[in-house]
Amino acid sequence: MTKRILLALLLLGANMAASLAQPFSKTVVSPNKSIQATLILNEKGEASYKIRFQGKDVIGQSRLGLRLRGYDLTTGLKRISDSKSSEKNSWKPVWGEVDEIKNEYKTITLKLVSAEGLRFDIVFRVYDDGVGFRYEFPKKDKTSEIVVLDELTEFQMTADYTALWAPSDWDSNEHTYTKSKISEIDATKHLTDIEPFVQHITNVHAVQTPVTLQGQSGFCMSIADAALVDYGAMHLEFDRTTRTFKSFIIPTADSTVKSINKLPFHTPWRAILLSPDAGGLLTNHLILNLNEPCKIKGDLSWIKPQKYVGIWWELHVGKSGWNYLDKDGKPTGKHGATTENVKHYIDFAAQNGFAGVLVEGWFEGWEDWFNVMRPEIFEFTKPYPDYDISEISRYAKEKGVKIIVHNETGSAIRSYERQMDAAYDYYLKYGFNAIKTGYVGFIQPKGEWHDGQEMINHYNEVLRRTAEKHIMVVAHEPVRPSGLQRTWPNFMASEAARGQEFNAWSKGNDPSHELSLIFTRLLGGPMDYTPGIFQMELNQFDKAKKDRVRTTVAKQLALYVTLYSPVQMAADLPENYEKRSDVFQFIRDVPTDWSDTKILNAAIGDYVTTARRQKNSDNWFIGSMTDETPRQFKAKLDFLDAGKNYEATIYEDGKDAHYLDNPYPVNIRKLNVRKGQTLAINLADGGGCAISIKAVK
Amino acid sequence: MTKRILLALLLLGANMAASLAQPFSKTVVSPNKSIQATLILNEKGEASYKIRFQGKDVIGQSRLGLRLRGYDLTTGLKRISDSKSSEKNSWKPVWGEVDEIKNEYKTITLKLVSAEGLRFDIVFRVYDDGVGFRYEFPKKDKTSEIVVLDELTEFQMTADYTALWAPSDWDSNEHTYTKSKISEIDATKHLTDIEPFVQHITNVHAVQTPVTLQGQSGFCMSIADAALVDYGAMHLEFDRTTRTFKSFIIPTADSTVKSINKLPFHTPWRAILLSPDAGGLLTNHLILNLNEPCKIKGDLSWIKPQKYVGIWWELHVGKSGWNYLDKDGKPTGKHGATTENVKHYIDFAAQNGFAGVLVEGWFEGWEDWFNVMRPEIFEFTKPYPDYDISEISRYAKEKGVKIIVHNETGSAIRSYERQMDAAYDYYLKYGFNAIKTGYVGFIQPKGEWHDGQEMINHYNEVLRRTAEKHIMVVAHEPVRPSGLQRTWPNFMASEAARGQEFNAWSKGNDPSHELSLIFTRLLGGPMDYTPGIFQMELNQFDKAKKDRVRTTVAKQLALYVTLYSPVQMAADLPENYEKRSDVFQFIRDVPTDWSDTKILNAAIGDYVTTARRQKNSDNWFIGSMTDETPRQFKAKLDFLDAGKNYEATIYEDGKDAHYLDNPYPVNIRKLNVRKGQTLAINLADGGGCAISIKAVK
Repeated sequence: MTKRILLALLLLGANMAASLAQPFSKTVVSPNKSIQATLILNEKGEASYKIRFQGKDVIGQSRLGLRLRGYDLTTGLKRISDSKSSEKNSWKPVWGEVDEIKNEYKTITLKLVSAEGLRFDIVFRVYDDGVGFRYEFPKKDKTSEIVVLDELTEFQMTADYTALWAPSDWDSNEHTYTKSKISEIDATKHLTDIEPFVQHITNVHAVQTPVTLQGQSGFCMSIADAALVDYGAMHLEFDRTTRTFKSFIIPTADSTVKSINKLPFHTPWRAILLSPDAGGLLTNHLILNLNEPCKIKGDLSWIKPQKYVGIWWELHVGKSGWNYLDKDGKPTGKHGATTENVKHYIDFAAQNGFAGVLVEGWFEGWEDWFNVMRPEIFEFTKPYPDYDISEISRYAKEKGVKIIVHNETGSAIRSYERQMDAAYDYYLKYGFNAIKTGYVGFIQPKGEWHDGQEMINHYNEVLRRTAEKHIMVVAHEPVRPSGLQRTWPNFMASEAARGQEFNAWSKGNDPSHELSLIFTRLLGGPMDYTPGIFQMELNQFDKAKKDRVRTTVAKQLALYVTLYSPVQMAADLPENYEKRSDVFQFIRDVPTDWSDTKILNAAIGDYVTTARRQKNSDNWFIGSMTDETPRQFKAKLDFLDAGKNYEATIYEDGKDAHYLDNPYPVNIRKLNVRKGQTLAINLADGGGCAISIKAVK
Repeated sequence: MTKRILLALLLLGANMAASLAQPFSKTVVSPNKSIQATLILNEKGEASYKIRFQGKDVIGQSRLGLRLRGYDLTTGLKRISDSKSSEKNSWKPVWGEVDEIKNEYKTITLKLVSAEGLRFDIVFRVYDDGVGFRYEFPKKDKTSEIVVLDELTEFQMTADYTALWAPSDWDSNEHTYTKSKISEIDATKHLTDIEPFVQHITNVHAVQTPVTLQGQSGFCMSIADAALVDYGAMHLEFDRTTRTFKSFIIPTADSTVKSINKLPFHTPWRAILLSPDAGGLLTNHLILNLNEPCKIKGDLSWIKPQKYVGIWWELHVGKSGWNYLDKDGKPTGKHGATTENVKHYIDFAAQNGFAGVLVEGWFEGWEDWFNVMRPEIFEFTKPYPDYDISEISRYAKEKGVKIIVHNETGSAIRSYERQMDAAYDYYLKYGFNAIKTGYVGFIQPKGEWHDGQEMINHYNEVLRRTAEKHIMVVAHEPVRPSGLQRTWPNFMASEAARGQEFNAWSKGNDPSHELSLIFTRLLGGPMDYTPGIFQMELNQFDKAKKDRVRTTVAKQLALYVTLYSPVQMAADLPENYEKRSDVFQFIRDVPTDWSDTKILNAAIGDYVTTARRQKNSDNWFIGSMTDETPRQFKAKLDFLDAGKNYEATIYEDGKDAHYLDNPYPVNIRKLNVRKGQTLAINLADGGGCAISIKAVK
C-alpha cells in the first residue's frame, strides 16, 4: 500500500516535469532597480544566468550546475516550478563597522529535477549591492547524502576588467596581490611568494576569492564565497578563450571528491558584490546579509572588541623565542613566554588601557614543530616550567587584563580536536576567554588542504565549541572569511592573508599591500593584521635581518581605522612605544567598535580614506593611507553632528617622511573643527595619516 | 665550542663504526635452553636473524630492516656495539586467565648506524615460550622524526608448515579462517566472506597476524604484533619461491607512507610464539610479557570483569530495530532501545546476577548511517525520545545493574573524537562506566584504514581517555588486539574478528570457527564473541531468515570457558533463556575471572578442552568443544586440590544432538568428584560440553 502511493507520486512528479520542460527565462530586479539577475533554463535543460548593473551586462550568460556521484545536474534538468518573493528588514551586529544593517532583497527559486530524478533548487537573491545565489537540496528523496564531484558555476566577464587578485593556492592565503587585466592573470611570479612547503598552486591562471574587478566606467565587482560551511572554498579558474571565471572547489583528500554532504544541504552562497565605485565596495554588506543570524543564545556581553599587546613581535624579530629548550634539550635562556615577561606586558597593557595580552610559545612542543609530518605535536594544557599559569592568572586579574591564549596546532588538527574540550576548560579555569588558533604548515597527516571541506568543518567546529564555552576566537592561517562573524560573533577576526609578520622575515609587504587587502580579503571579515610597528629596522636583536618594514609610522596609525577589526594588536615592543609616547597616544585612543563608517575616497589598491564613528560616542576617527605614491586630499567633515564642537588631533607624515628610508617623522597637530569644515590630508610616499576627532563637552 | 665538541663526537662515532664493520653473529639462548635466536650482520652491513626451537631451525635466516625517508636501514649498516642482559620476575594481571605471570628472558641489543648516519638498535628478547624483537630509534640525533616507507622484516619458513590463517584485509578482521599448507595460501575464496564495501584485500597470498603454524613434529608457532602502538598493523605476504613471510605494514592515507613517528620511537614487537604442542599455545604469555605494565594509576576497583545481557541479538534477528524513525520520518514502532524494554533487561540481569545491560540504538543517527560517506553521523549525547536516560539510570541503580553504553561511530572517527570528552562525562553523570565502541564501514572520509597508524592511534587514544575517566571499553571492529590489556586493563575485550553476529545474517560460522579463533585472534587478547545462543532457528521475527546457528546448545555453554574474556554476554533473548532455565544455570554460575588455566587437550582448529579455576575460589569450570567431528575425551581431574570434595555438574550434548538439525538436547547430570578422577566428555557433531566443579564445604 505505502509502496503503491509512492509509485503514484513518482509517476505524477515525472509527468509534471515532462510537461514543463520548455525553455525558461525570468529576471529579478533589485529593490532600487540598479541590478537585474536573469535565470535561464534552455531546451536542453541546461541552467544559466546573467547579471546587469546600472544598465550594462556585467556578467554575461554563465553556466550553472554541479556534477554529483550518480547525478548530472548540468543538463537534462526539468523545471518543476518557480517562485518569487522578497524580504525587507534590518539587523544589528553584535560588533561591527556600523550599528545597523539593512537587509532588503528580491528572490527567485527555480525548482528542478535531474534526469536521474534528483530534486534540487537554484535560488537567487538580488540586493541593491549585489547578487547571491546557491544550490539547495531538500531533505532526502532518492538519496540521503550527496557526493559533489564538481561545481560548474561560471562567471562570464563581459569586458577585459582590471582585476585585483591573489593566486589560487589550496593551502595558503599568504600571497601578495597583483593588479592586472583579467586576460593577463598569471600567478607564475607568485610561486615564490612564500615557502614552498606551505603552498599548493596547481593552476597559474586561477585566483582565490574574493577577487575584485573594475570596469572602464569605474564600477566595481567582487566575486566571493558567503557562509562557507561544510564545503570546500571556491577558487576561480580563468578561461581566456571565453573570458570566463570557472569555479573550482578545493577537493577533499580524495582529489576526485569536492564535498560529501548529508541532505538537506545547500552550497555556500556565490556572492557578487556590486558598487558604482571603489569606496562603495568597502561599505557593501552583501556577504554579511547572506549569512545566517547569530546562533549564540543568551548573554553576549562576554564578547568584547578590544586592543591587545603581547609576546609576539619580539619572537619574530629575534629578541626571544617560542621554544623553551634548545636542540640539546637545555633551556635556551631566550624563552619569551616567561612569567616575568608576561607580567611586564600585563603592566604595559593595564597602563595603556588594553584589555588583552597575547602569549605565544607557552606550552610544550615548540622545540620541534615546523614542517614535521607527524599528527601529534603540541600539548595544549602543559605550560613550560617558566610559565607559572596560576600566578599569571592571579596577576592579570589584579591588573584587569586577560591573557589571549595561543593555540598553534601546526595543522595537526586531529590532535587539537582531541585536546580541545579539556584545553578550553583549562583556560577558563584561569579566567582566559580568548584564543588565537594557528594552522601553520600542511595538514597532518598530509592529504587534506587548508581550503578543503574537512578543514572548513574544523574551523567552524572550533567556532561552535568556543561559542558554547563563551570563548572568543582569532584564527591564523584558516580559510579566508566569508561573513561567518554574523552567525558566530565570537569569531573576532582571522589572519587568512599575508599579515604584518611577513615584514619581519621575508621580502616583506609592499606599500600597496594593505590597500589590496581591504578591497579583497577584508570583504569577507575582519583581519588580525597586527598593525602598529614603530621600529622599522629589524636588526636590533638579529644582525642578519637586513630588510626593514616599508611604511611610515603615521601609516601604521592609520591602519587601526582603515583595516577594520574588532581586535587590534599594538604589535611592537613596549619599549618602542615608550620612546614615542606622543605618537602612541593615537593607539591608546582609537576604539575597536563603530556605529558608522564613511569612505571619503578610495582607489583599488592605491589609496583610501576612512572615517568611523566610535560606538556609543560622538567621537570620530579617520585613517588615510597610500601606496608608494605621495598624495594630498581634502577631507570634508560633513559627517560630524551639526552644532557640535570637536577637537581633532592629526598624526601625519612629518617632513621628508618616506616609507623606504625615513619612516619616523610624525607631525602631531590639534585643531578645533565643526561639521562641514575641510581637513587637509598629506600622505608621504608609502605614508598615512590618522586623526582623532573628539567631541568637546 | 658546543659545535666543536659535537664534531669531535661525530668523528669518533664514525671511526668506531668503521673499525667495527665486520661480519657479526651472536646467539641468545632462552632460560630453559629450548629456544635460540641468532642475530647476524654480514659484510655488506645487512642484518638478519634465525630461530631454533627444540633443536631444529624453525625460522631460517631472515632479513631485518626498514626503509625510511632519507635513510636505508637494509644495507650498509655498521655495528657500534652489542650487549646482552636478562630479566627475571613476575607480575599479576588486574584480571586474566591466571593470577600471576612469569616474565623471564635473555636479551641482545645490537647498536647500529646507517650509511647516512642514523642511529638505531635491533633488540631481541628470548623467552622460554617465544621470541620478541623490534627496532628502536633513540632520541633525536640527525632528525627528530622518521617516516617509515617500508618495514622489510621477514620470517623464512624452514618447512611447508600447516597454517591456520585469515586473509590480509586492510579494513576488516571479520573473515573466516582456513587451514592449509603455507604453500597453498590463497585468499581468493575469502573475497566474498563479507560485504565488499567493508573489506580491502590487495594480495590473496597474504595473511593477517596472528597466523598460526604447525610443523610435522606437532610443534606450534604463531607470528604476531605485540604492543601495537603508533604504527600500522603487521600483515604477512607469503613468497612461495623463498617460502618466506614478508611483513607488510598497513599504510596511512598516503599509500607510500607506513608510519610517521617522533623520536624516540620503537616499532611494535614482532612476536614469535613457540610451543611444543597446540595446547601450549593457549597458555603462552609472550605477547602480554612484551607489553608495558599497567599505566593506570591508583584505584583499579572500578574495573570489573562481568557478564552482561542486552538489547543486541533481538536487533540482529529482527525483533526490534536500532532506528527510531522510518524513511518517512515517522516512529517505526519497532524501536528496541525503549525505556520499557531496557527495564525488562535490567530486571532479567538483576534476577540472574549479571552486572551489565548493553543498549544499542539509543542515540540519534541510526536512520541513515550505514555505508554513508559523510564524516558526521551520530550524536553521542542525544537519546531518542523513547529512551528516558534519567529514569533508566535511576532504575538500574535501584536494581544494582549498570548500562553498557553503545558508541557506534560508523567509522566517522573525527566526529567521535570531537564528541568524546562530553559524551563520557554525560555517561558518568548517569552512573554508566562502560562503553562498547564500534567501527562499522570504511573510515570517513575515505583514505585511512582500520589497521593503519591513524586508526591504531585512535583506538589507543580511546583507551587512554577512558582510563583517565575510569571507564571500561569493549571495542568492536578495531584492529585485532596485541596484548594492550596489560597496559590498559580498562580495555576489557574487543571483537576484531568474525563474531556470533555473523550467525544472524550471513552464511554464518562453521563449527570450526571458534576453534580457529582461539588459536589465532585470541592469542592477542580477549574477544567479545557474545556466546549463549539457545534458539537456533532465526525466522521467529523475520521469515526471510532461512539460515540457522550451526552449534549445539551445550557448545554455546562451553564457549564461556574456552573463549576467554573478562566480559561475557548472554546474547540470546531473555525469553529463550527462561524456557531453558535448567541449562541457563551454567551461564548464571560461570565466572569471568580466573586464577589458573589448564588445557586438557587441543588440536588446532579441531577441538579443545579447557579447565579454569575461578578467581579467589576453589571452583573449577571446564569447557570442551569440537568442530564437525564428534569426539570423546577423558578429562583427568588432577588439577583439583587434594583432599577436597567437589560436586560436578555436567552439561553435555544429549541423545542424537547435532549442530545442523538437532541442537537442543542437553543432558545435565551431577557427580561428586575428587582430584585424580577422570570424567568422560562426549561431544556431538559440532557439539560441546560444559562442566562446573564446585568445592563442597
